[in-house]
Amino acid sequence: MTDAPYIVGVDIGGTKVACVLADVEGNILARQWQPTRAGEGWQVVVQQLFEMTERVLEGVSYRQVRGIGISCGGPLDSQRGVVYSPPNLPGWDAVPIKQVFEDRFGLPARLENDANATALAEHRFGAGRGTRNMVFMTWGTGVGGGLVLDGRLYRGTNDLAGEIGHTTVLLDGPLCGCGKRGCLEALVSGPSIARRARELAGESPESLIWQRTSPNEATAQHVVEAAHAGDTFARFVLAEAGTYMGIGIANVAQILNPERVVLGTIAVKAGDLVLEPLRQALQVHAWSRVREVLQVVPAELGDRAQDLAAVCLWLED
Amino acid sequence: MTDAPYIVGVDIGGTKVACVLADVEGNILARQWQPTRAGEGWQVVVQQLFEMTERVLEGVSYRQVRGIGISCGGPLDSQRGVVYSPPNLPGWDAVPIKQVFEDRFGLPARLENDANATALAEHRFGAGRGTRNMVFMTWGTGVGGGLVLDGRLYRGTNDLAGEIGHTTVLLDGPLCGCGKRGCLEALVSGPSIARRARELAGESPESLIWQRTSPNEATAQHVVEAAHAGDTFARFVLAEAGTYMGIGIANVAQILNPERVVLGTIAVKAGDLVLEPLRQALQVHAWSRVREVLQVVPAELGDRAQDLAAVCLWLED
Repeated sequence: MTDAPYIVGVDIGGTKVACVLADVEGNILARQWQPTRAGEGWQVVVQQLFEMTERVLEGVSYRQVRGIGISCGGPLDSQRGVVYSPPNLPGWDAVPIKQVFEDRFGLPARLENDANATALAEHRFGAGRGTRNMVFMTWGTGVGGGLVLDGRLYRGTNDLAGEIGHTTVLLDGPLCGCGKRGCLEALVSGPSIARRARELAGESPESLIWQRTSPNEATAQHVVEAAHAGDTFARFVLAEAGTYMGIGIANVAQILNPERVVLGTIAVKAGDLVLEPLRQALQVHAWSRVREVLQVVPAELGDRAQDLAAVCLWLED
Repeated sequence: MTDAPYIVGVDIGGTKVACVLADVEGNILARQWQPTRAGEGWQVVVQQLFEMTERVLEGVSYRQVRGIGISCGGPLDSQRGVVYSPPNLPGWDAVPIKQVFEDRFGLPARLENDANATALAEHRFGAGRGTRNMVFMTWGTGVGGGLVLDGRLYRGTNDLAGEIGHTTVLLDGPLCGCGKRGCLEALVSGPSIARRARELAGESPESLIWQRTSPNEATAQHVVEAAHAGDTFARFVLAEAGTYMGIGIANVAQILNPERVVLGTIAVKAGDLVLEPLRQALQVHAWSRVREVLQVVPAELGDRAQDLAAVCLWLED
């Protein structure tokens, strides 16, 4: 790895693609984004990325660029730099994205799944700063994870480490999108929170949630807003999700004994409404010696996380 | 770390203490063992260890010894080399065993908990050979674990990584010795298997188990022997334990994406009687992409594991 001062970060999402130019302190010097033309095939999206990369590199000598970091949903092969049909990118079947970028720009590229890359960003610049052992968990539409162990990203054998959302927390529990039953994700994700509110709608006709939306259209966002407004039912639904999240985190903590667990969107938006029941569940399901070195905190980077995630791939060894 | 050719391995157990002299290929050149005089206080046990260490070192120049490895039940602080009241060593409250050995012999010493040390031994000499990411699990009286990740032992923040036996597998399940409910250990350990057989004794009066022992005296060993002899009830009890073990391993696999899980005593003794149901549960609870790189196998070192465990502490970086 050279000590060149600039890094290009490329974030490939199902709805949005973005490119940034950053320095090694994580300052964003230029930024481009576009809606993903996902329906038009991967070649079209790659053209979008090329154009944006060129634009953020305007006026910069390529010799001053350390490398291009690419963050994308999995499954993917980080070592070979190949993307294998992420659910949000139809038709991306074995796309050698690393090679495609290296050929086009003559710069070294690295590929990492988005949860891992965001874990690196929170570890270096956000809520995981200064820790040696950190678990990052996305908590939104899905529940993913990235593990920084002994100070380094741990990817597992085929880039699937950190799939905490698909550990079994409730035997014979609700069906998960992945096909298994009782996964943590099926109990605590945004859509799962909305589904739970819907299931119990008949028993909670007076809830603020139903003054603002219908059972068919309710989202986790509605539940969080009603809970913040003091709605008892909405608070119950969030507390249930927080409790299951606490059990899932307790299991991770018993296995990895981390010093910090950093939680994404829903923890950021709902705060203590989920974190209090979560910590109570942790109290029951994790040993005191495990808990005494462990902090569970919301993520800090917010919208900056996606920009910094891909950049961080070139701040590692 | 010097390249001296010999290593002293010290194994401190609740019933037995042992010392070996080994070379760096893991050949045991001398061996001493004694029943642990655990009731007489730690100073007496340390005297036992000193005597045995002197004896295995007879005729060896201390300059030829790389170091002393000490394997002991946790909790302990591997970095400071201090043992904190393991359940099987009453009165060992903050014993600075590393310092004690270094002062006595003028040789550098390292301390590690026994599950971690055994994980290193299986990784280097046993069923984990050649793997980069390996989970070792003791499966006997207790269910512990040791993690080799990216080729190195991962200890966690305060030496508690790998406590897989105390992840929650069955919410509101049986009470565990640790005080929690539904821990993997409370469902699959030797005593748990015996308890389960006892619970169901009334429904299985014809079982071979009860021809050989009484419900009050039944052990997992009786269950395994009856199952090997074809006893349907004993096979059912083992299959249930194997199924829960498979769920626990599935959760670990979703988090760590290892290439091998190496299982201790009960897997070695019961073989496919537990491994078949275990693999079926893994099929249900772990993703196919996680399973396709994963092997679950019995440990290979048997009685050699304890001798090699402490020695392996000086074969690491």
